[in-house]
Amino acid sequence: MMINAAGRKIPEHIEGYGKVRPYRGAFETPSSGEKAAAKKKDHFPGKVKLADSLRDAIEKAGLKDGMTISFHHHLRNGDRTVNLVMKEIAAMGFKDIHLAATGLFACHEPLVGMIEDGVITKISTDTFNPGPVATAIAAGKLKYPAVLMTHGGRPRAVEAGELHIDIAFIAAPSCDEQGNINGTEGPSACGYLSYAYADAMYADVVVAVTDNLVPYPACPIEISQDFVDFIVCVDSIGDPGGIVSGSTKITEDPVRLKIASYAAQVADAAGHIREGMSFQTGASGTSLAVAAEVRQMMKERNIQGSFGLGGIHAYFVQMLKEGLFKALLDAQCFDLAAIESARKNKNHMGLSASLYANPHNAGCVAHQLDTVILGATEIDLDFNVNVITGSTGNIIGAAGGHSDTAAGAKLTVIVANLVRKNICVVRERVTTVTTPGESVDVLVTEYGIAVNPARKDLLKKLQNSGLPVVDIAELKRKGEEMAGPQKMPETGSRIVGVVEYRDGTVIDVIRELNDDKNK
Amino acid sequence: MMINAAGRKIPEHIEGYGKVRPYRGAFETPSSGEKAAAKKKDHFPGKVKLADSLRDAIEKAGLKDGMTISFHHHLRNGDRTVNLVMKEIAAMGFKDIHLAATGLFACHEPLVGMIEDGVITKISTDTFNPGPVATAIAAGKLKYPAVLMTHGGRPRAVEAGELHIDIAFIAAPSCDEQGNINGTEGPSACGYLSYAYADAMYADVVVAVTDNLVPYPACPIEISQDFVDFIVCVDSIGDPGGIVSGSTKITEDPVRLKIASYAAQVADAAGHIREGMSFQTGASGTSLAVAAEVRQMMKERNIQGSFGLGGIHAYFVQMLKEGLFKALLDAQCFDLAAIESARKNKNHMGLSASLYANPHNAGCVAHQLDTVILGATEIDLDFNVNVITGSTGNIIGAAGGHSDTAAGAKLTVIVANLVRKNICVVRERVTTVTTPGESVDVLVTEYGIAVNPARKDLLKKLQNSGLPVVDIAELKRKGEEMAGPQKMPETGSRIVGVVEYRDGTVIDVIRELNDDKNK
Repeated sequence: MMINAAGRKIPEHIEGYGKVRPYRGAFETPSSGEKAAAKKKDHFPGKVKLADSLRDAIEKAGLKDGMTISFHHHLRNGDRTVNLVMKEIAAMGFKDIHLAATGLFACHEPLVGMIEDGVITKISTDTFNPGPVATAIAAGKLKYPAVLMTHGGRPRAVEAGELHIDIAFIAAPSCDEQGNINGTEGPSACGYLSYAYADAMYADVVVAVTDNLVPYPACPIEISQDFVDFIVCVDSIGDPGGIVSGSTKITEDPVRLKIASYAAQVADAAGHIREGMSFQTGASGTSLAVAAEVRQMMKERNIQGSFGLGGIHAYFVQMLKEGLFKALLDAQCFDLAAIESARKNKNHMGLSASLYANPHNAGCVAHQLDTVILGATEIDLDFNVNVITGSTGNIIGAAGGHSDTAAGAKLTVIVANLVRKNICVVRERVTTVTTPGESVDVLVTEYGIAVNPARKDLLKKLQNSGLPVVDIAELKRKGEEMAGPQKMPETGSRIVGVVEYRDGTVIDVIRELNDDKNK
Repeated sequence: MMINAAGRKIPEHIEGYGKVRPYRGAFETPSSGEKAAAKKKDHFPGKVKLADSLRDAIEKAGLKDGMTISFHHHLRNGDRTVNLVMKEIAAMGFKDIHLAATGLFACHEPLVGMIEDGVITKISTDTFNPGPVATAIAAGKLKYPAVLMTHGGRPRAVEAGELHIDIAFIAAPSCDEQGNINGTEGPSACGYLSYAYADAMYADVVVAVTDNLVPYPACPIEISQDFVDFIVCVDSIGDPGGIVSGSTKITEDPVRLKIASYAAQVADAAGHIREGMSFQTGASGTSLAVAAEVRQMMKERNIQGSFGLGGIHAYFVQMLKEGLFKALLDAQCFDLAAIESARKNKNHMGLSASLYANPHNAGCVAHQLDTVILGATEIDLDFNVNVITGSTGNIIGAAGGHSDTAAGAKLTVIVANLVRKNICVVRERVTTVTTPGESVDVLVTEYGIAVNPARKDLLKKLQNSGLPVVDIAELKRKGEEMAGPQKMPETGSRIVGVVEYRDGTVIDVIRELNDDKNK
């Protein structure tokens, strides 16, 4: 056992994961050496890429027991591709598959049976929505520990050869017979396929799965044919209606509106509401309310920002149209308005996940970000944030871009209700560290604003702003007063999940949930 | 010595080049193994990429004697970047530089002195316009043999690690302070930067050289910041007025118009003027006249083609606007109309040189081509074509996309005047093999059309078409009758150039020109 820089006790070696490189600090593990060497290919004139069926494609791709296969998650909870392909793989009798999907959602419930049957024995992912797969992992059903990555960490791992993909299955909303692909056109359009780019470039074999074979050449070309080996047509890769998950409307809850207003004022007081500003926020009701406040400030002061980043939603699309941003840099469309904008507006640009957030390239966009607004399931007195495990110990998420943008942004603001039901968001210690406290600048709650003491400059600015600045310990005391005594979930000793920081070090582990004790 | 599949006698080892893999046939050398592993990088927040001066950038990039540096040639004969950077490198006292420029033009005359002084001792290129640098190489002034590649062979070599680039200098018509680049905007806009993509992805260090630093983020992003290490501003990277070299107007010469008309009829008789057709032609007067004939056929028959490929000129732009092509796939803009179209028309898409023509990926676009119209300095009885050396033995070109598209296209048509001055284009043996006869289907001259005997199917179609089909030997006899006896240029024994086929094998060598004997 060793203690990493986030203060977590972690083993030096984890069965089914390997040697652990401990987290050393947000920027303490620079890159070294060379990327992986991708396989050379060739495809001389006359060779045909179209497979007759999914089974034919899987056979041509040369799947074997124990291989790593990958998927992207741009169709989110509307995705049908993972289930389709995995069902065929299971029917063909394969075992011991490492499923490296960039995201898993409630719709992927059929995978639970495959986990129980040993078809899937390992999972790596960077997006998790609460649901049966996450619950099965927390319950210890998966043979090897799941590896939870970040949006930037995953392409880093792929490029580094740490996550070697044998076969990438790419759900393709538009595809021609040579494998030119885009995500913005067609009946299942889901927006830019950012999370699939590294897979296309580094997988040994790339299979495009499409429900929309278009005449050559597919326009625009997002992933090009020089990376795609086989193509297979299916009835439907997914339902874009399932992309929108949860609220994508500005909250009407007065408490959340108050939090949002505070958050916008914090960004302003910190000097980040200015000409050329950049901004990222998610699609939750509170996050959108912050965007609404920021928009109002920008309009009143006649400010043009530089870029909106990350998951793109209708609200950012509107701000682009209004000229409040010069550009949107899109790693994922969160709604149909974003998909339409990606298709039509040339300043709404897609970017690879590596360009978005990978710390080990010549410069990711997340490192250019002024302000990011993020959520938290828990935050502790050291400002460490958890978005992975719930207070009952169940797995309810993955890091996504949380720790990537928190590390990169000049100002990282966590917005959270101090108390939800009988739970206080501020903890002595978070259950699982997703994002280290050193990357978090401010916690904004309805009962006040706590500034990370390491940010003395910011503290000074906020203290002069008239905003209700309080100590985080004071928030904890107040929250516990309302919510009652808080307890940590009880877990067993077996490690069911490894939380990789974006640089590939291990920032925390998730232990098997002892369900009886947490009821 | 060994004899390769093009019938050329070549050494097994060439001093200053290395071990020779002999040409074995157009598709007889498939890829094997893995691509090169690019260097990992990182760029944590706050690090600055902007260099103070060219000298500062060169120092930061870590240039050393003997290194390989690269440039792209999209500014063609208007380029100023190569001379600027090389002048500084020479002034700093560096020696023994391997200059891997994708193209060299008459404007690069200042390099001759650097070749004589030993600043530059090796050159690799895939585009050569007649001029002082080519002449200096033919005269044996360069210490090591020049390596002449194809447009597809170069990115193949870069990706394979055979051409390892230490520092890529990328002339950037638009660039932001993080190194997002495009070639389509700004005062020196030269169109898509296709030939620079592989360099950006595989060079150890990437330096953007720009005369147009724009606010972040540069839109659109063509080469992204995650590949760019340093940025340096200069007064001018080049004059887009110099992009247009030679004729870009349809010929008015009746002989050439006759050749063009024959060529279009050949494509038609071969069945390639049809719905969904694809087509490539250069920007010479004869080539454009072929395009004009083809356009007329398409309009009359209400045909929509699939794509126009390669170097894009105003004529293809017009055909795209008229709906005669669904898309243009652009590796290089040949004129200002093409640049404007690339900027404005979303169906005018850029493609990497690898996607264009590299035989060792999962499928290049050249392999999807129906018809390509190409020129020739010489063509021999085996249909081998030379575009590299003139009949006096001087170096006047490089393969460019000649052998790439000839290999890929279903129909490769060579258009040439049978006799120009006292030179007959048909030879017993070409001086230098650029494109092997097996890739060439038809020679069209003003005195008749010769079909490669290997293409019996085509011969049959053309014989029934009413076109003047003749034997190539008959053309040679007729041409020599008019031009007088033809002689091969006399060369010395020293090898001054190695002609690499697109798959990295050696298809021919160029020997030192014995200037006295060829006057």
